[in-house]
Amino acid sequence: MFVETYETYNAVYDKILKGKVVVVIDTLRATSVITTALVNGAKEVIPVADIEDAINMSGHLERDTILLGGERNAVKIEGFDLSNSPLEYSEDVVKGKTIIITTTNGTRALKKASSSDDVVVGCLLNVTSVADYIHRENKDVVIICAGTEGKFSIDDIITAGAILDRLEKLSPYESDDLSKASYFLYKSFQDNILNIMKYGYHLNRIEKLGFHEDVEFCTTIDKFSVVPKYVNGVVRLV
Amino acid sequence: MFVETYETYNAVYDKILKGKVVVVIDTLRATSVITTALVNGAKEVIPVADIEDAINMSGHLERDTILLGGERNAVKIEGFDLSNSPLEYSEDVVKGKTIIITTTNGTRALKKASSSDDVVVGCLLNVTSVADYIHRENKDVVIICAGTEGKFSIDDIITAGAILDRLEKLSPYESDDLSKASYFLYKSFQDNILNIMKYGYHLNRIEKLGFHEDVEFCTTIDKFSVVPKYVNGVVRLV
Repeated sequence: MFVETYETYNAVYDKILKGKVVVVIDTLRATSVITTALVNGAKEVIPVADIEDAINMSGHLERDTILLGGERNAVKIEGFDLSNSPLEYSEDVVKGKTIIITTTNGTRALKKASSSDDVVVGCLLNVTSVADYIHRENKDVVIICAGTEGKFSIDDIITAGAILDRLEKLSPYESDDLSKASYFLYKSFQDNILNIMKYGYHLNRIEKLGFHEDVEFCTTIDKFSVVPKYVNGVVRLV
Repeated sequence: MFVETYETYNAVYDKILKGKVVVVIDTLRATSVITTALVNGAKEVIPVADIEDAINMSGHLERDTILLGGERNAVKIEGFDLSNSPLEYSEDVVKGKTIIITTTNGTRALKKASSSDDVVVGCLLNVTSVADYIHRENKDVVIICAGTEGKFSIDDIITAGAILDRLEKLSPYESDDLSKASYFLYKSFQDNILNIMKYGYHLNRIEKLGFHEDVEFCTTIDKFSVVPKYVNGVVRLV
């Protein structure tokens, strides 16, 4: 098993993904939102790249079966039902619903991943389940971090490291240098990942916008034991 | 002062570099070679991207004043005087010479950096001198890692972290997430950087090719107190 990690989706090409398990990570907050929504009973989550796509798609579905969610510049999109805060995706809100979501980086990273037929959604909330899934699939792995504004983002990298820490206990694997750096960075801060995550640009930006509770929620390790899987443009639980 | 770090030169655009101090790092081995050659009395080093450019340029200079150096796939180029091993660039060989060098990543990273008029060469051999230089210049900084085969390379990232560790003691600075990750990774292994560097793909590749002494040499911190500066296509000591 060989694991490659990419700091953003920009350098990911289709041929890299063929035949691999692809893990898409956008810890703050898209993949945390998707995971939480599905745990809380959402039927499915459909990630779309653009606001227009989200609105168009909602027009083709029964309006009371769907919710529109997402963000631009970390804040709620005008006319949408939900923002990009996982705390809004509670059971009473999302149960049985199809959620159409568009976020700056996370949904774009998922679209990019879709040339693999084995794409799962990772965040700190489900690192052990993702590692278990990788172990069971027993294929080469590509971890695609969403990144922030096209750049390396500590929150995603620490999540990758946490997954690799669990994977190491299950499967022998080899990996590229960014996977190794992610692993060692995670190991150095595993007793309190906030001691490094608090320096992250994106975490600070979200804190400043008043989303402290989101940060607390999204940095909780293994809150859930689920693996959301992205198949034919739709994310559902495995 | 704001510091940005790039894992390779691929994502670096000219406008990012304008008005900044740019530090180009290719620890294994191009920037270590350039630094060593200049310490040992080479008059100047001219990095060129292609083998053909190197040969063409040598044709326009007195043959006994120049040396052709570099590598492709980590090994010496046919017909060249020197490979990419810093150990070959001893005083008796290089003193007073102009060295035309072409390497896979390092010289390309320098070319990319050249839209700034303040570009210096960094490696583990001169981290404190580079940090001192950045402190004196007191401008924003871009660290460009050469990377390996277009990807994140632990050797370069640890070097960036070591420079930032020294810089922190001299200047208050803010930085992007990859700078912070490099810093924390370095700090976690500062007592013995080989404990992480030994996992690097590129270091292992060089070891397997038989260049163990090169690795030992290039991973020595602060062997030299010089800052090679790249001006108008030529590297000389400041």
